[in-house]
Amino acid sequence: MAMVLCFTAAVGYAEGNQTPATTASLTETIHQMTLGVDTLWVTIAAMLVFFMQAGFGMVEAGFIRAKNTCNILTKNFLDYSLASLMFFFVGYAFMFGEGSFIGGNGFCLIGCDETVGTVQIWAFWFFQAAFCGAAATIVAGGMAERMKFPAYLIYTVVISALVYPIVGHWIWGGGWLAEMGFKDFAGSTVVHATGGWAAFIGTILLGPRLGKYVNGKAKAIAGHNIPLACLGVFILWFGWFGFNPGSTVAVGDGADLALVAMNTNLSAAAGGVTAMIVVWILVGKPDLSMTMNGALAGLVAITAPCAFVTPTAAILIGAIGGVIVVLGVLLLDRIRVDDPVGAVPVHGMNGLWGTIAVGLFDVNDGLFNGGGVKLLGTQILGTLTVSLFVIVSMGLVFLAIRNTIGLRVSRAEELRGLDIGEHGMESYAGFQIFVTE
Amino acid sequence: MAMVLCFTAAVGYAEGNQTPATTASLTETIHQMTLGVDTLWVTIAAMLVFFMQAGFGMVEAGFIRAKNTCNILTKNFLDYSLASLMFFFVGYAFMFGEGSFIGGNGFCLIGCDETVGTVQIWAFWFFQAAFCGAAATIVAGGMAERMKFPAYLIYTVVISALVYPIVGHWIWGGGWLAEMGFKDFAGSTVVHATGGWAAFIGTILLGPRLGKYVNGKAKAIAGHNIPLACLGVFILWFGWFGFNPGSTVAVGDGADLALVAMNTNLSAAAGGVTAMIVVWILVGKPDLSMTMNGALAGLVAITAPCAFVTPTAAILIGAIGGVIVVLGVLLLDRIRVDDPVGAVPVHGMNGLWGTIAVGLFDVNDGLFNGGGVKLLGTQILGTLTVSLFVIVSMGLVFLAIRNTIGLRVSRAEELRGLDIGEHGMESYAGFQIFVTE
Amino acid sequence: MAMVLCFTAAVGYAEGNQTPATTASLTETIHQMTLGVDTLWVTIAAMLVFFMQAGFGMVEAGFIRAKNTCNILTKNFLDYSLASLMFFFVGYAFMFGEGSFIGGNGFCLIGCDETVGTVQIWAFWFFQAAFCGAAATIVAGGMAERMKFPAYLIYTVVISALVYPIVGHWIWGGGWLAEMGFKDFAGSTVVHATGGWAAFIGTILLGPRLGKYVNGKAKAIAGHNIPLACLGVFILWFGWFGFNPGSTVAVGDGADLALVAMNTNLSAAAGGVTAMIVVWILVGKPDLSMTMNGALAGLVAITAPCAFVTPTAAILIGAIGGVIVVLGVLLLDRIRVDDPVGAVPVHGMNGLWGTIAVGLFDVNDGLFNGGGVKLLGTQILGTLTVSLFVIVSMGLVFLAIRNTIGLRVSRAEELRGLDIGEHGMESYAGFQIFVTE
Repeated sequence: MAMVLCFTAAVGYAEGNQTPATTASLTETIHQMTLGVDTLWVTIAAMLVFFMQAGFGMVEAGFIRAKNTCNILTKNFLDYSLASLMFFFVGYAFMFGEGSFIGGNGFCLIGCDETVGTVQIWAFWFFQAAFCGAAATIVAGGMAERMKFPAYLIYTVVISALVYPIVGHWIWGGGWLAEMGFKDFAGSTVVHATGGWAAFIGTILLGPRLGKYVNGKAKAIAGHNIPLACLGVFILWFGWFGFNPGSTVAVGDGADLALVAMNTNLSAAAGGVTAMIVVWILVGKPDLSMTMNGALAGLVAITAPCAFVTPTAAILIGAIGGVIVVLGVLLLDRIRVDDPVGAVPVHGMNGLWGTIAVGLFDVNDGLFNGGGVKLLGTQILGTLTVSLFVIVSMGLVFLAIRNTIGLRVSRAEELRGLDIGEHGMESYAGFQIFVTE
Repeated sequence: MAMVLCFTAAVGYAEGNQTPATTASLTETIHQMTLGVDTLWVTIAAMLVFFMQAGFGMVEAGFIRAKNTCNILTKNFLDYSLASLMFFFVGYAFMFGEGSFIGGNGFCLIGCDETVGTVQIWAFWFFQAAFCGAAATIVAGGMAERMKFPAYLIYTVVISALVYPIVGHWIWGGGWLAEMGFKDFAGSTVVHATGGWAAFIGTILLGPRLGKYVNGKAKAIAGHNIPLACLGVFILWFGWFGFNPGSTVAVGDGADLALVAMNTNLSAAAGGVTAMIVVWILVGKPDLSMTMNGALAGLVAITAPCAFVTPTAAILIGAIGGVIVVLGVLLLDRIRVDDPVGAVPVHGMNGLWGTIAVGLFDVNDGLFNGGGVKLLGTQILGTLTVSLFVIVSMGLVFLAIRNTIGLRVSRAEELRGLDIGEHGMESYAGFQIFVTE
Repeated sequence: MAMVLCFTAAVGYAEGNQTPATTASLTETIHQMTLGVDTLWVTIAAMLVFFMQAGFGMVEAGFIRAKNTCNILTKNFLDYSLASLMFFFVGYAFMFGEGSFIGGNGFCLIGCDETVGTVQIWAFWFFQAAFCGAAATIVAGGMAERMKFPAYLIYTVVISALVYPIVGHWIWGGGWLAEMGFKDFAGSTVVHATGGWAAFIGTILLGPRLGKYVNGKAKAIAGHNIPLACLGVFILWFGWFGFNPGSTVAVGDGADLALVAMNTNLSAAAGGVTAMIVVWILVGKPDLSMTMNGALAGLVAITAPCAFVTPTAAILIGAIGGVIVVLGVLLLDRIRVDDPVGAVPVHGMNGLWGTIAVGLFDVNDGLFNGGGVKLLGTQILGTLTVSLFVIVSMGLVFLAIRNTIGLRVSRAEELRGLDIGEHGMESYAGFQIFVTE
């Protein structure tokens, strides 16, 4: 039966040419196919990175109280949407355009080459835009349950249009850190340290939630939906297989992307296990929230080194990440920084750790592989500089917001919940829920 | 170490041939590889479209009351399952077989060619079957909370075996609209207008939910689980990256699928942002439900034009989609059509809009690109005809059901909830839930 | 605009060679590309199989009571993490190393070839490790709501490091069943029968939940979150498109993976429909839980035969699977084996059925295709031997645990819930939940 089909795009090279193939025509055909396969891979990876947004949303929502759930989901939804638009209009140009401190051409992709390496520009943009959204959304968790919605929208526009692209330009856009030989394969610093330290300064400037510190002691405020948070962690882990392996930006013979995927998986697994063990020892019970944050810590930590280290090193890096996240959560509680979902230990501290780990475990230039301290020094310098830059620049932004429209909702609204206050809706209509402060 | 491996299928062409390669043998190898890559892509895209079913389920469940949640999920589960079976037995033949009004050969794929373009028939079928399931499930949301389960099963068989394939035949199967030059890249009309207008007529024939219109005023009936609905929207957005880019049905050099992915993302983002702004202005708060429906509206609207327009046009198309969905929801409330999840504004109205937008923004033949009104006229004619055909044919089906086994559950069952009434189970055993009408 | 880009890995073969291509160089280029495409496919498939872990978690959580939800999710989270680590250290070597009863080389992948077939070893490992995790997690559901957490950790290490790799070695690693011609394409026996029968013996040794059998009658204990379970089923179905089609371990011309995907989808659909019909007839209502288990049954059943049978046979195999699962649940209730989520009927019984179905429906050697009873006999022998081996070996493990640290939590803890008892946390803080036994 001859299928009638008005649906397919032109199928091009697959159709038999009338003229016999030559080595020259075959070379061209293979080149087109390489463009196709590499673009397909980066597009699929971008989809997975996009899907991480659902993971962030569910983790953040699950770890906070029911009364603020719609609020954080709206933030999560909007930061990705605004980041997509901003990164099209200006962010991509700031990040990948020419310039030393910041890029300056390619707004709306005008004038850009059709391909980046062997990837169509549209796919490369989509992949990078999804990264930008991830950096933006990390902050929502740290500042959850008390930040004004309009303030969040302003923050989002600034980080996705300006701060993230500047950091990205330095490291992935040919800027000064790139020139120094700084290595951050998939963004422990570019994405996670940026998001994590922005959350850190934002959380400090916002102050702790009502009822978090009573008589000088930190009080646990339980998350309202742990299964949802758990699902979110699985979605993040799943999406990370786009985030890290996709950063190869080419398929080649598959060795790089496969090693990266394996390392990513092992590091996450190790982080979850060590976090569980440490919290079991320190607190007496294998806490699921901490275990899940341990896996996320392992994922953040392996993001920079995933393509540069062996699987055994990946396990070590993740395992240490799991320890860091538990100690980090306890430390923040001691210094009274109220980070409801652990954004700072997961993304900030482990962003640092992962970046530094490259200097230790890199198979060629790492300290433990006889590479000396040169790379290690560059990694430490780079990640600390970026963290400091983010804290200062985002600190100024948050201060400006605080002194104009205000960062924080009213006491009454915080007690009642931001779902009603900011959005006029409830997350779980019909359910009997105790509203606590 | 030589791995012992009894697992892999024959690896074929990758093994070194004993005889030296010639340009002819290389051409054949590349042809096989193209079949492989294109089939892989369409299969992955089909998986993503399948996964949209989970998105539809969670959105529909989250936006209605807890007491009817199992019911809508069972409908959602069964419509995909039945659509898969129906589309194998008869739907594919009706859609892609030869014939003017309807196809007539290829039942159970018997007699079909092994490939469609450069895609293996199995993959092409899977992709198309998942589309059929999507069209079927749209209706569940509009008719939620009061429709009998057996009536829904009958409806599902009819739409997936007959109505959807007929529309698909006209547009993608070589029918009269295809011959007129009607352009619907991934189905704003074929899938979304079909599902949306079927929901429209079904909702009207079913009547509003008890308690929806009191003393002439529409009463808001809040959804019971907004985080679940939010997750559903993210899953839909994620799955749409299979729906739209997969409709290239070939990888080629990757440019088409990458542009489609980027446009899809930008349109969704723009739709979410404008819907939020419009509802903020009209109602006073940035409502999350409406924002999410705005993103879905952007996705529906870009489905027809995604491969034919620039990213800037995609932003405009999505932005207008976001406005349409808010106004559409308000309009339906005014004319007392009770569509609990917004299926008609999202899929019906934006299916129309997206199809018409091709006539405006098509880079070659669009009105705004100097292409005149020819394409625009064809688009308007095509989408209106399809919508009318769906309303009439499905209206007759729903009337026939109403006059035989009945469309609507009893008043007592509606008050008590369809979970108990139709399925003998509860969605949230152990939770304290207020059952409201 | 020349994009400045410090991001991409070396792009290699895509760059134009200075020297003109020859047929020899093109052959090598195509070989590299085949490695790339096949590795990419297996890596993506592995991601999907990983994601099934989220599906298992949500199904298991949704089908039990709220008070034990964190507990099962922690088990689910840890079994995948531990399986990943164990499968790296020893499991892969036991499974794919050389040896008759068990493999003996390749620990930590040391000494392994760089590729397996046309797939990079890292990707092949990742895919196999995800399978190992799936086998491990099946047991959590059957033993839910009463098993000690430390006991579960020990169980997990044993099954993923030893029992699963031994079974895998027999069938996929060149062991005695492989040599006999036993056919299990994607693991109806290797993964599902192994997990299912381990759950069976574990459940028996653990005893039923308090309040399950009262005065000799089985009492239904309702799941606490059916929408979550439904989402889990959709995620599993989605992930199964990695599980089955990915088991081609090569793209080739795409025909195999596409047929497998289509068969997988049809069998799941048929299983859901027949389970619904059977439960409707037997119990009087179309129960959603049973319908969903029917789809899972169809998925398990088609896992062994998916590449060896026609789509029509796939529908039959799934349809029978759906019947088996309903009867299996009723049978277990009658013999008082308390399996809260139906792990034994879904994975154990349908693992057997699917494996035997190969002997009936195989297009070449199946009984119904004139192939005689040779293959059928091998299939029956193989799957029964494996099931027996698992029941005996895991039975000894569970007995050893029971006689040392104990398998079961105290009566008080079981009544109060394992979330508080084992993990010191609640799943749904703030919600009003009735704790029932």
